[in-house]
Amino acid sequence: MGEILTPVRDAAEARAKSCLMKALVYRGPGFKTVEERQKPIVQAPDDAVVKLLKTTICGTDLHILKGDVPTCTPGRILGHEGVGVVESIGSGVTMFEPGDRVLISCITSCGKCDYCRRGMYSHCLTGGWILGNTIDGTQAEFVRIPHADTSLYPIPPGVDEEALVMLSDVLPTAFECGVLNGKIEMPGISVAIIGAGPIGLATLLTARFFSPGKIIMVDRDDNRLAVAKKLGADLVINNAHEDAIARIRGLTGGAGVDAVIEAVGTPEAFELCEELVAPGGRIANVGVHGKKVDLHLEKLWSQNISITTRLVDTVTTHILLKAVETHKVDPNQLISHRFAFARILDAYDTFGRAADTHALKVIISMAE
Amino acid sequence: MGEILTPVRDAAEARAKSCLMKALVYRGPGFKTVEERQKPIVQAPDDAVVKLLKTTICGTDLHILKGDVPTCTPGRILGHEGVGVVESIGSGVTMFEPGDRVLISCITSCGKCDYCRRGMYSHCLTGGWILGNTIDGTQAEFVRIPHADTSLYPIPPGVDEEALVMLSDVLPTAFECGVLNGKIEMPGISVAIIGAGPIGLATLLTARFFSPGKIIMVDRDDNRLAVAKKLGADLVINNAHEDAIARIRGLTGGAGVDAVIEAVGTPEAFELCEELVAPGGRIANVGVHGKKVDLHLEKLWSQNISITTRLVDTVTTHILLKAVETHKVDPNQLISHRFAFARILDAYDTFGRAADTHALKVIISMAE
Amino acid sequence: MGEILTPVRDAAEARAKSCLMKALVYRGPGFKTVEERQKPIVQAPDDAVVKLLKTTICGTDLHILKGDVPTCTPGRILGHEGVGVVESIGSGVTMFEPGDRVLISCITSCGKCDYCRRGMYSHCLTGGWILGNTIDGTQAEFVRIPHADTSLYPIPPGVDEEALVMLSDVLPTAFECGVLNGKIEMPGISVAIIGAGPIGLATLLTARFFSPGKIIMVDRDDNRLAVAKKLGADLVINNAHEDAIARIRGLTGGAGVDAVIEAVGTPEAFELCEELVAPGGRIANVGVHGKKVDLHLEKLWSQNISITTRLVDTVTTHILLKAVETHKVDPNQLISHRFAFARILDAYDTFGRAADTHALKVIISMAE
Amino acid sequence: MGEILTPVRDAAEARAKSCLMKALVYRGPGFKTVEERQKPIVQAPDDAVVKLLKTTICGTDLHILKGDVPTCTPGRILGHEGVGVVESIGSGVTMFEPGDRVLISCITSCGKCDYCRRGMYSHCLTGGWILGNTIDGTQAEFVRIPHADTSLYPIPPGVDEEALVMLSDVLPTAFECGVLNGKIEMPGISVAIIGAGPIGLATLLTARFFSPGKIIMVDRDDNRLAVAKKLGADLVINNAHEDAIARIRGLTGGAGVDAVIEAVGTPEAFELCEELVAPGGRIANVGVHGKKVDLHLEKLWSQNISITTRLVDTVTTHILLKAVETHKVDPNQLISHRFAFARILDAYDTFGRAADTHALKVIISMAE
Repeated sequence: MGEILTPVRDAAEARAKSCLMKALVYRGPGFKTVEERQKPIVQAPDDAVVKLLKTTICGTDLHILKGDVPTCTPGRILGHEGVGVVESIGSGVTMFEPGDRVLISCITSCGKCDYCRRGMYSHCLTGGWILGNTIDGTQAEFVRIPHADTSLYPIPPGVDEEALVMLSDVLPTAFECGVLNGKIEMPGISVAIIGAGPIGLATLLTARFFSPGKIIMVDRDDNRLAVAKKLGADLVINNAHEDAIARIRGLTGGAGVDAVIEAVGTPEAFELCEELVAPGGRIANVGVHGKKVDLHLEKLWSQNISITTRLVDTVTTHILLKAVETHKVDPNQLISHRFAFARILDAYDTFGRAADTHALKVIISMAE
Repeated sequence: MGEILTPVRDAAEARAKSCLMKALVYRGPGFKTVEERQKPIVQAPDDAVVKLLKTTICGTDLHILKGDVPTCTPGRILGHEGVGVVESIGSGVTMFEPGDRVLISCITSCGKCDYCRRGMYSHCLTGGWILGNTIDGTQAEFVRIPHADTSLYPIPPGVDEEALVMLSDVLPTAFECGVLNGKIEMPGISVAIIGAGPIGLATLLTARFFSPGKIIMVDRDDNRLAVAKKLGADLVINNAHEDAIARIRGLTGGAGVDAVIEAVGTPEAFELCEELVAPGGRIANVGVHGKKVDLHLEKLWSQNISITTRLVDTVTTHILLKAVETHKVDPNQLISHRFAFARILDAYDTFGRAADTHALKVIISMAE
Repeated sequence: MGEILTPVRDAAEARAKSCLMKALVYRGPGFKTVEERQKPIVQAPDDAVVKLLKTTICGTDLHILKGDVPTCTPGRILGHEGVGVVESIGSGVTMFEPGDRVLISCITSCGKCDYCRRGMYSHCLTGGWILGNTIDGTQAEFVRIPHADTSLYPIPPGVDEEALVMLSDVLPTAFECGVLNGKIEMPGISVAIIGAGPIGLATLLTARFFSPGKIIMVDRDDNRLAVAKKLGADLVINNAHEDAIARIRGLTGGAGVDAVIEAVGTPEAFELCEELVAPGGRIANVGVHGKKVDLHLEKLWSQNISITTRLVDTVTTHILLKAVETHKVDPNQLISHRFAFARILDAYDTFGRAADTHALKVIISMAE
Repeated sequence: MGEILTPVRDAAEARAKSCLMKALVYRGPGFKTVEERQKPIVQAPDDAVVKLLKTTICGTDLHILKGDVPTCTPGRILGHEGVGVVESIGSGVTMFEPGDRVLISCITSCGKCDYCRRGMYSHCLTGGWILGNTIDGTQAEFVRIPHADTSLYPIPPGVDEEALVMLSDVLPTAFECGVLNGKIEMPGISVAIIGAGPIGLATLLTARFFSPGKIIMVDRDDNRLAVAKKLGADLVINNAHEDAIARIRGLTGGAGVDAVIEAVGTPEAFELCEELVAPGGRIANVGVHGKKVDLHLEKLWSQNISITTRLVDTVTTHILLKAVETHKVDPNQLISHRFAFARILDAYDTFGRAADTHALKVIISMAE
């Protein structure tokens, strides 16, 4: 009888198990755990459930863990980046089928509301940045993706899937908020990027779709500047040791640069941009700011400049996919470390101590 | 003999007189005088000397008189607006001849330097805003205009010349810095203009080239708001008595307006703009600022907004001339008072006490 | 027993009847009938069925009836314009509920495919112009609308619903293909519209959102030109009697006009546009063409012009709705006749003999 | 006595000689000669006379020699490209001094007329393409340049001057008429260039400022296609042997390419573009056409395409100068042959038999 029962018990266990998954869960400021959670299921006709293959950690995840993001409450599975395989779909999903390999956008977009119709997916009335924020995210074995048809992207065959994890957030953020808002398309213009972390480096990579005459990277970390140099920066300036304003003005006949891209998120970095922008130039803000900054309109009111802010809309994801597919950009250059999902806490540790570990983006792989 | 001498003496006097002219001269903070000055003469091949017919006073002239514009030194003839008749030209002037009736642009443009070739006449390396600032201006019987071919505009026959005085500065400033930078072309959008002085009202007039769904004017002066209403504002708000933020958010479902135009030049006015701009919207600064402002990036970083600054380039002067000629705008609506040039000090007094006198733009006419 | 049966029979009949509706059906070149057809039902999760309140007839419907539109096969219910009330919805529809009053777009858009994501709804891979073409249309008591969330628009309360019928097709077509492609935003420019039928007049109405200096209408029908004059044309030219080229060149110093909008669809009309366009100008094609045209590149190659073609994308429908709501345009001015749905064949007759009947757009109303 | 006279005679001869120069002169259809001509002198205040260092031959020069350009009459010195040294200047010239090394633009621009103020230098009312057409050109030892301040460009020190000869015409033509009008900035799009002559290859070079996913070159000359491949074309198609339409449609899922650039100037080439353009795409015409073409509006009216024509405005010359200076493009790659000015007739022969000689652009050098 025991012999008979055993397989039954095993099956029951297996069934039970199949409803559970591992996930990285935010447990309040300073606390995160790896937990067993219920696997998500399709809740609405336009939902898909995706089995993760690869995910990563974003600087924003560290902000959440510090308690700086009040919309994200304890108990939330973190993560808004990744690639995976569609597991199940709702009745209204028409663009994907179970088994499809997909890129998950960090921005969920209904495709129907006024904001989505204007291409401002970041402000989608029932989406925007919700993954790993107001709904459970991608640092788990499975994730539910609302508005799947307009929030997932098919992965072209033969494309490196690790590289594509960079297309969930960091590359479109850099490209849309930094490069496109900075209007650097015309050949020969001068560009300064303040901050050489993953987002600043992604700005550098995507700036090179065009042909600016000079791309200058400013940071306080020599290692990151060395990476910037390797990725094609024409000039790097460590502003811990050197006066970036004097140097850049000297190089530009006193005028400053045509486009300055803020990829740090501090008043100091933004105010440096104000000093560096040439008449007629652009300051494109990419950084996430927690404090107000001083805007020196007493100098800038007559300088014909523009300042832009933007939460990434991921409207260029399909463009970036084509660019990766046709080898116009290699996002792998942003990946410094790789971990198995079982070691996600180590991944967080490595990513969190970037100055020491020289971490840029870390890839976390699930067993396929 | 006396009979013989008298005409000779008169002629001599007349000759002497013909080299002199009356002018309004800045004599240091708080001081201005009407003086006799040497008539200007052509100094460079591309100069023209223009006999003024009409001029006006700008808010900037009041700033100079307060001592707030260090580039303008005592002894300077003020004024950067006006219409007149070409008196004499240099050998290189090809677009105008003596006798031509012309509009004087507040911005002097060489048409040759890098900034001019890019349409940024405001930053012309040998021009920009120099009239009544670093060289003598238009509040005089005659004025020398450098780079005449690209700094004067022919007056089409039959056009009201008083109206055209508004095209020297106030209309292009409002249109370029406010309306075009605010991107209000698409029908139905919502616009708020902060400040209903001459520049704010000119913004309203030129906004109506397009078809915004709602134009809201905010000011603390009921008289100016009444004028705004008459000139086509859909809604006026006196923010001395009413909470403009609550009112405007209420009207826009909480979102704010698509374009906010700052036409005051104070931190309070600019920071009000920050509160009123909708996600995806524009803050177009027109005001002249003397102090830094607080930019609340901790709220705005994710709002997909743009902020623009601009010193008027007068690149739209020919467009505005056509618009006046084809009756698409009536700039006369900005004129509240008229004075003979002999009474220019009264004109300053009236313009300077606008709250009491209800002055908008004042026309000062020379005897033709 | 008969007494008992009668109500049963009546009920059965009623039930049967409730599945039927009247519709205008294309029965092959030259033939149309009013028939009883099965009421449409929801077939896909994103379908809605709409009970029509008002519809109209388009010039394209006449083309179909001539046999010129091979995609439209006999048996098809015609019509791609109208307003109505949502009757039922599929499980995936989230933006509308039964009872909502809606505007039906002539273009069906999935909102998900590459074309829709780029704003080219006209080329939607599962939509585009299908209503009254490859699927049954709106000249019926009910219509099934696929991709309802992105193909219907809510009707704002208080807006004239007859006016809105003009927003299904004729106004967005005129605005997108003619006015926006013609780039007429800058005040003071010159515009010629070739053809003063409903679409040419709608181009005139929507051109007036901006402030062109001169709008010239060219047609061969004095009645239509009289309407054009009433709707704000600055000049009308009957090119049956007058040489439009000589007249327009004469008015523009020989240069031609900045924007020419072709709203006829014949080689003659298009080639007239080639003669009228100024250097640097635009030819915006709106007309539906059945033949090739001669493009005189031997003259135009050096003239810095652009030629655009477009099937309406209806991406501006929400803009036009706001413009109607804020009284920036009155589309009722395009309506010349009104019919009850029972008299739709008379409506076709009137519309088809426009030269005699002076018909512009005809409104066909269902009993509510 | 003879001894005394001889030096005098020599001096007289030398003086006489110094007023003469060698020049390539058009002498009617089929005829050209090298002649002694009077050296040009400054005629207007804004003239400069430039001593040529390098010039080249354009396809247009061959058109003139065939008698196809009626504005160019016998006796004209040909040539509209080159670099040189300023010899003398008029009193109104402020941007250059004798001794300055300059690039000569093929387009003469006054900088003052309505067209120039709009950036349409090609249609300058007193300039445009006049060099080697309606006034004497650059295939001579000296050339007079009207409107010198706005028609010459300073040569940055250290830049290869042969490369810069490509910036007089061929590079700005390719970039403005082809690349910018073709709107190929967004990474990953598909581009076809029809014609792999110098202008088609220059289009390829300047297209690579951006990151199109695929650049396809179509020509009937294997040698030119081999050069195209070397210069970075992703795919070359010899449409003498292969069906370009079938191949390109096959590669693009039947849709065609986003941008097609016509760099031939024949009806066949333009009509090929019509077959290749995808819905929503652009046809940018660069070729000089002598005949009308068939425009298939019966197919294209609904395809949301644009067609552009343009005579180069040379508004991007300063951009291209910066791009050369910062090594973003190497125009030397277009140079196939070099000749001394004494051998200019050989240069014409080589350039005129390009199919045999494999000539692209030929450099003609004067003795410095």
